[in-house]
Amino acid sequence: MGDLGAVSVGIVGASGYGGVQLVRLILEHPHLKLTYLGGDSSAGKSFGELYPHLAHAVDLKVEKIDVDLIAERAEVVFMGLPNGIACGLAPQLLAKGCKVLDLSADYRFWNLETYEYHYGIKRSDNTVAEMAVYGLPELYRREIQEAQLVGCPGCYPTASLLALAPLLKQGLIVPDTAIVDAKSGTSGAGRTPKVGSLLAEADNSIAPYGVARHRHTPEIEQIGGDLAGREVRIQFTPHLVPMVRGILATVYGTMRDPGLVREDLFTIYNAFYRNAPWVRLLPSGTYPQTKWAYGTNACYISVEVDQRTDRVIVMSVIDNLMKGQASQAIQCLNIMMGWDDMLGLPQLSIYP
Amino acid sequence: MGDLGAVSVGIVGASGYGGVQLVRLILEHPHLKLTYLGGDSSAGKSFGELYPHLAHAVDLKVEKIDVDLIAERAEVVFMGLPNGIACGLAPQLLAKGCKVLDLSADYRFWNLETYEYHYGIKRSDNTVAEMAVYGLPELYRREIQEAQLVGCPGCYPTASLLALAPLLKQGLIVPDTAIVDAKSGTSGAGRTPKVGSLLAEADNSIAPYGVARHRHTPEIEQIGGDLAGREVRIQFTPHLVPMVRGILATVYGTMRDPGLVREDLFTIYNAFYRNAPWVRLLPSGTYPQTKWAYGTNACYISVEVDQRTDRVIVMSVIDNLMKGQASQAIQCLNIMMGWDDMLGLPQLSIYP
Amino acid sequence: MGDLGAVSVGIVGASGYGGVQLVRLILEHPHLKLTYLGGDSSAGKSFGELYPHLAHAVDLKVEKIDVDLIAERAEVVFMGLPNGIACGLAPQLLAKGCKVLDLSADYRFWNLETYEYHYGIKRSDNTVAEMAVYGLPELYRREIQEAQLVGCPGCYPTASLLALAPLLKQGLIVPDTAIVDAKSGTSGAGRTPKVGSLLAEADNSIAPYGVARHRHTPEIEQIGGDLAGREVRIQFTPHLVPMVRGILATVYGTMRDPGLVREDLFTIYNAFYRNAPWVRLLPSGTYPQTKWAYGTNACYISVEVDQRTDRVIVMSVIDNLMKGQASQAIQCLNIMMGWDDMLGLPQLSIYP
Amino acid sequence: MGDLGAVSVGIVGASGYGGVQLVRLILEHPHLKLTYLGGDSSAGKSFGELYPHLAHAVDLKVEKIDVDLIAERAEVVFMGLPNGIACGLAPQLLAKGCKVLDLSADYRFWNLETYEYHYGIKRSDNTVAEMAVYGLPELYRREIQEAQLVGCPGCYPTASLLALAPLLKQGLIVPDTAIVDAKSGTSGAGRTPKVGSLLAEADNSIAPYGVARHRHTPEIEQIGGDLAGREVRIQFTPHLVPMVRGILATVYGTMRDPGLVREDLFTIYNAFYRNAPWVRLLPSGTYPQTKWAYGTNACYISVEVDQRTDRVIVMSVIDNLMKGQASQAIQCLNIMMGWDDMLGLPQLSIYP
Repeated sequence: MGDLGAVSVGIVGASGYGGVQLVRLILEHPHLKLTYLGGDSSAGKSFGELYPHLAHAVDLKVEKIDVDLIAERAEVVFMGLPNGIACGLAPQLLAKGCKVLDLSADYRFWNLETYEYHYGIKRSDNTVAEMAVYGLPELYRREIQEAQLVGCPGCYPTASLLALAPLLKQGLIVPDTAIVDAKSGTSGAGRTPKVGSLLAEADNSIAPYGVARHRHTPEIEQIGGDLAGREVRIQFTPHLVPMVRGILATVYGTMRDPGLVREDLFTIYNAFYRNAPWVRLLPSGTYPQTKWAYGTNACYISVEVDQRTDRVIVMSVIDNLMKGQASQAIQCLNIMMGWDDMLGLPQLSIYP
Repeated sequence: MGDLGAVSVGIVGASGYGGVQLVRLILEHPHLKLTYLGGDSSAGKSFGELYPHLAHAVDLKVEKIDVDLIAERAEVVFMGLPNGIACGLAPQLLAKGCKVLDLSADYRFWNLETYEYHYGIKRSDNTVAEMAVYGLPELYRREIQEAQLVGCPGCYPTASLLALAPLLKQGLIVPDTAIVDAKSGTSGAGRTPKVGSLLAEADNSIAPYGVARHRHTPEIEQIGGDLAGREVRIQFTPHLVPMVRGILATVYGTMRDPGLVREDLFTIYNAFYRNAPWVRLLPSGTYPQTKWAYGTNACYISVEVDQRTDRVIVMSVIDNLMKGQASQAIQCLNIMMGWDDMLGLPQLSIYP
Repeated sequence: MGDLGAVSVGIVGASGYGGVQLVRLILEHPHLKLTYLGGDSSAGKSFGELYPHLAHAVDLKVEKIDVDLIAERAEVVFMGLPNGIACGLAPQLLAKGCKVLDLSADYRFWNLETYEYHYGIKRSDNTVAEMAVYGLPELYRREIQEAQLVGCPGCYPTASLLALAPLLKQGLIVPDTAIVDAKSGTSGAGRTPKVGSLLAEADNSIAPYGVARHRHTPEIEQIGGDLAGREVRIQFTPHLVPMVRGILATVYGTMRDPGLVREDLFTIYNAFYRNAPWVRLLPSGTYPQTKWAYGTNACYISVEVDQRTDRVIVMSVIDNLMKGQASQAIQCLNIMMGWDDMLGLPQLSIYP
Repeated sequence: MGDLGAVSVGIVGASGYGGVQLVRLILEHPHLKLTYLGGDSSAGKSFGELYPHLAHAVDLKVEKIDVDLIAERAEVVFMGLPNGIACGLAPQLLAKGCKVLDLSADYRFWNLETYEYHYGIKRSDNTVAEMAVYGLPELYRREIQEAQLVGCPGCYPTASLLALAPLLKQGLIVPDTAIVDAKSGTSGAGRTPKVGSLLAEADNSIAPYGVARHRHTPEIEQIGGDLAGREVRIQFTPHLVPMVRGILATVYGTMRDPGLVREDLFTIYNAFYRNAPWVRLLPSGTYPQTKWAYGTNACYISVEVDQRTDRVIVMSVIDNLMKGQASQAIQCLNIMMGWDDMLGLPQLSIYP
């Protein structure tokens, strides 16, 4: 693991769940070598103190975040920091020639006013933000190939948009009938302890949250609008599920042409994702389980038509920390480097 | 527990999860005494062999199902058998003067053709079926008061209809925009072992099933139609959640009058459920967790309006084996006997 | 719930898991009425803000901890505070005539030096501490009857001692061969959020902790020594199990008399717990599940003898927040008041 | 995946949890190619019907078990069948030149009478059974290098013996004081549905089973005796934990020399496992979580000494389906083929 010709990679914000995924993925990637780990609260600790099971595999310490040091050590920088911090660092790293992939929300929005409104953070880096590419390879492959700065999608938007994209792009549904009822494991809330994420609270219970106002809504609508060629209003409801990982998006939409049957939809999805090796369409009557995507970069999708109601129901599952976060960022890097999409990424989930 | 004046109660189908709830509830009820347990596969076993933790509290054996014996022992009979069996027994028990509360689907449908189509079972007991009352007390209290035969609602229909009823009854939504995205714990599948219900399979995973064709749909539509005063088409999607108990129904509908705000809806729901002591409306911005209803007969409901999309989103939670099954049947019996709705039923969930 | 003749009860430290159990149990108890809730960090909040599912049942606010106020409102005070605080308050409350039941470790030790050593807290309230009774009714019923101050046992010691007591009291094992391998759900760590108690961390994993130095060891040894009539050294190893509630203690000991068989042990345990209505001995070959005790004050015990190894293996399960904490405190109060042990306490667990 | 020079591998008994692990591991192994899947009840089905998430990766059908066909297709055969079947097939496969690795108990015992007694199955294949090697590479590497037939260890014995081996081999404990208190996820019970393995039953509960008579005891004692150089009696108690995968063995033993401290033990373990790349010793005070081994072939071990009791406490964790079953079998094959122990096997667990 790690060779002379390997690309050097740094992670800023290495102590969280995004960070520990990236560490593992980089260690297992044939063309990457891990050369820097940075963090604030964990600076000075060895990575093995944070994650003892990896102590034998990683002998790096978490270091203070220092732009000069990072740029000296790493050609590529992944940023896994709280919202509002990457936008201060990324411009400096780009200026020093690093490629930057940001896991926060900072570079997901084309209109910074939308970001400012929903995230309550002022921005003044318009020029850099305009360079950013939305890192969903199934939709923006060409842009990612050329990118120096990637704003990696949120976990919910990834699952939602992979389910919705063919419907919106091909004009198959009335856009404003789109409803995304999404379900996520608790790791999406991160490693910072909160009462609601305690096992004692979250286990054996399911609950909605952020109803009608979750901030992944404008992100889904931005990309949905780009696909539809016009503004769209999408209903998005997230739920917390008593499991560690995984997102399921159950998507409803009213078909423009009620004559379409499941096989038509299947053909359309198949064509849409022909060059998307990580999207796996399921056969008729087979519905995805989040566990099938566990630990992999895959997205499983099932399409159903209800002739009684003229609705299409699309179900997609991903691992929220992988395709919904860290491994999708590596997939983007693979594309940026001209490598195969699949390179170095886990394909087969551990089951059961 | 148990007194001279107590009403004698028998359970046919005592070995399953519905049975074991009923046993506990009857033991804890001040006016009921348990006098008969019946079953097929478990006949001859003591109840303590099936559920060792209750051996100290129940010294009854499970007996063969014998109508004469049952009628001799019990004034009231709960039936928790697979679909298609109660409709053979109930007429005989009624003829012998028993009150019957059936937990299966046999007496839920006003049109037996609907039942025959969805359950694949022929029926010829129209006269008796017509006597049956749909056992959802919040909607059919008066009918239940007079009933000799109650068809207890399915677990999903209970959660769905308590969320939908005010909307449909007051004409607040366009009925055919109603979507019920429902989530259930695995105990709903019963105690008969199946691969999909194994902990190794179902844990740490969520998945949809029965999409666009689950047989609780016609049941929801029957009652929904009764409320709306016309036929309705409701989209219903169940999901299996990695937890033992609980159902959450997330219900979407497009408002007829987009001017309504959350407070209006809250007032309407409050009025609708004024005399429903088991329905608990939550304050603005508080969304229910299934765990809050755990082990109780309560239904927690939260109403939200999305002004952006003109939709109302209603969330309801119940314990699928309690309000969704066994304790709701006891609530019906309380009403049939002229007792208080709350009598003998658990009100406060164990938390966490 | 609540009558003129009821005993007034206050809870200091009402916001945690012990507090919410006590609230529920007091509400359901026929002779108690809840008159005061106190806390520090949560002072000023309504109880329904902390636990929304109970908002309909409790209209008390959490108030600042004020000894005069408490004594004015409550005849009995339960204290569920972090270690080291009750010992400052209890003397004042006792002086004002309250009965005090403390859930912390402050009044569990007969020798305050042991407490000071293991808990790192200085103590100067020897006179009051000497009044305290160890609140394990199966062993100290007579003392509890007379007590004004009860130091309620830890959750692990409760499960461990109920399994060990007959062995040590009757001299059936070589005391220093006693090993307690204990397993607990995560609610034992309380509601204060910690990384290790997050669902994302603790789910789907089991781990030991505090090996060879957990501070429940001296507590077990104090009572074990009292039973054995001499000092004992007991090996105690706790484990964190991915579940909300429940403790299982698997206890090993080498028999003094290898001729004893399981039936002998069963007879001895039966006699020992003849007047202990909450202890339930299981028949041969039936081993307890923690779920059987879920939500109740019961302790299920199974005794096994291994003739090959001359060891006795005793397995006991309790609900760590009930018999291991809150409901055991109510059981003590029942005894202090001269009521039945079972009064007002949940006897039958919700299953599954 | 799969190359001209790759070794052809068949799996008999492909539909169970052992089978699906092997399929994934073989697909990801650089020198193996999967050429045959066999089974009884699932014969005729495509593998994708059994495990839909792997449909895109495996296009083999499960075929009837036919020795000629297997031998023609596969140089190496893994057998994952119920106990008592492999011993009928293995002799024929060996006769045709296949290497055989059996995951059942059939070839684990050096004395077939022990097997017959504990498994209730008559055996007459002594000659072949004598060829079998116990497939625990950390103890029997040399024998495995030469083997044609490997009896792969049980999951509990693997975890137990890796913890016990240095103690017994170096005579550090009094052998008959050894107690193994073991905890396992429910996948160990296999994919065949049973009531006790249902999520509704097993979730949120822990319970012992097979106390004093589990049939992994004689297997642990056989190897333990080989290490100690004399017969040993080991107390073994398994527990079912509400999680999918993982085994934790908490091992107790009384030290012969009470003067030993933790560092001494650590040094001895370090030396013992110097050439065992899959065993990872943890630093002082760090105790293993089963999740750390999840999905990998690793075994994490922590050693603790209790000076108060003169006991050593060793804790080991493995993934029961990996190091406890399938990946350990691949590790054995790596050794048989002269490859590196680590070749093609997952090293870093997915966390959290």
